[in-house]
Amino acid sequence: MLEPALDLYGEAAERVEAVLIDLLAQSRARYALVVDRQGFVLLHQRAPWAPKPPSLDSLATLIASNHSANVAIAQLFGESAFRETVQVGDGVGTYVEALGDRALLVAVFDETAPLGKVKLFTKRAVARIRDVLADVREAPPELVFGAAFSDDAGALLDDLFDDRNRP
Amino acid sequence: MLEPALDLYGEAAERVEAVLIDLLAQSRARYALVVDRQGFVLLHQRAPWAPKPPSLDSLATLIASNHSANVAIAQLFGESAFRETVQVGDGVGTYVEALGDRALLVAVFDETAPLGKVKLFTKRAVARIRDVLADVREAPPELVFGAAFSDDAGALLDDLFDDRNRP
Repeated sequence: MLEPALDLYGEAAERVEAVLIDLLAQSRARYALVVDRQGFVLLHQRAPWAPKPPSLDSLATLIASNHSANVAIAQLFGESAFRETVQVGDGVGTYVEALGDRALLVAVFDETAPLGKVKLFTKRAVARIRDVLADVREAPPELVFGAAFSDDAGALLDDLFDDRNRP
Repeated sequence: MLEPALDLYGEAAERVEAVLIDLLAQSRARYALVVDRQGFVLLHQRAPWAPKPPSLDSLATLIASNHSANVAIAQLFGESAFRETVQVGDGVGTYVEALGDRALLVAVFDETAPLGKVKLFTKRAVARIRDVLADVREAPPELVFGAAFSDDAGALLDDLFDDRNRP
């Protein structure tokens, strides 16, 4: 079964969403998405001034399959992949950059956003998101039992097993 | 059966090849190709300083299928197609621009060629190739029988049918 390649949840997801919001504010792009290479939308943000986006699921699927074709082209020239892909149309363009081996950062912009700015701030966003992902990998979520929990649990166990409580 | 969408032959092919040679000299790109949207290489040139290229047929097929995916992405945003596509890797990059509805101009460059130059001169090459293609469409090739041919043919026919030659 297909499952997203990257679990972004809790604090990590919030930090990456903040990066996407900054990216939109700085670059004046319309939409920013983190998409995994299987074509799932992991996170997305829409600029307040952007029109209603098309189906982001369709976009993510097409971007991911396009990326696979790009990898095949890069490999013809002995490269593992292209680092960045830019598509420019009359009204809308996309800028896609790899986020490690498993995900892509996609910025969709229109003619009001200069391509140079979109590139610059997307590259900065990629660096910040990589830091967040590195943190996530270093510190997988685990259950932490604090002192208060231990005390409570100890008291409960005492209650259960302590002979003194038996009638 | 699949057949190339564009017949470039004779003088038109020579003129487009000259454009590709100029493009390589001006942009310092490695290879320049005219590819049709079905994935056939119609014309190609290799810069004198470029290493042996990978299979250009494979490259053309991948570029054309990539372009179809790009069209699908552009259509999500209400555009008919993206005008230009840039892929940049660590050592090699590609720049693809539409040549009308039926073909693509592809420039493959390495880190010695500045992207700005590749873009500028590829755009100029596209304009020049469009002019050539417009000429081809306006003046389809036709057989022209010059005065010399007529005279020769007339003499032959006279020989065949002129009673004076009969014994």
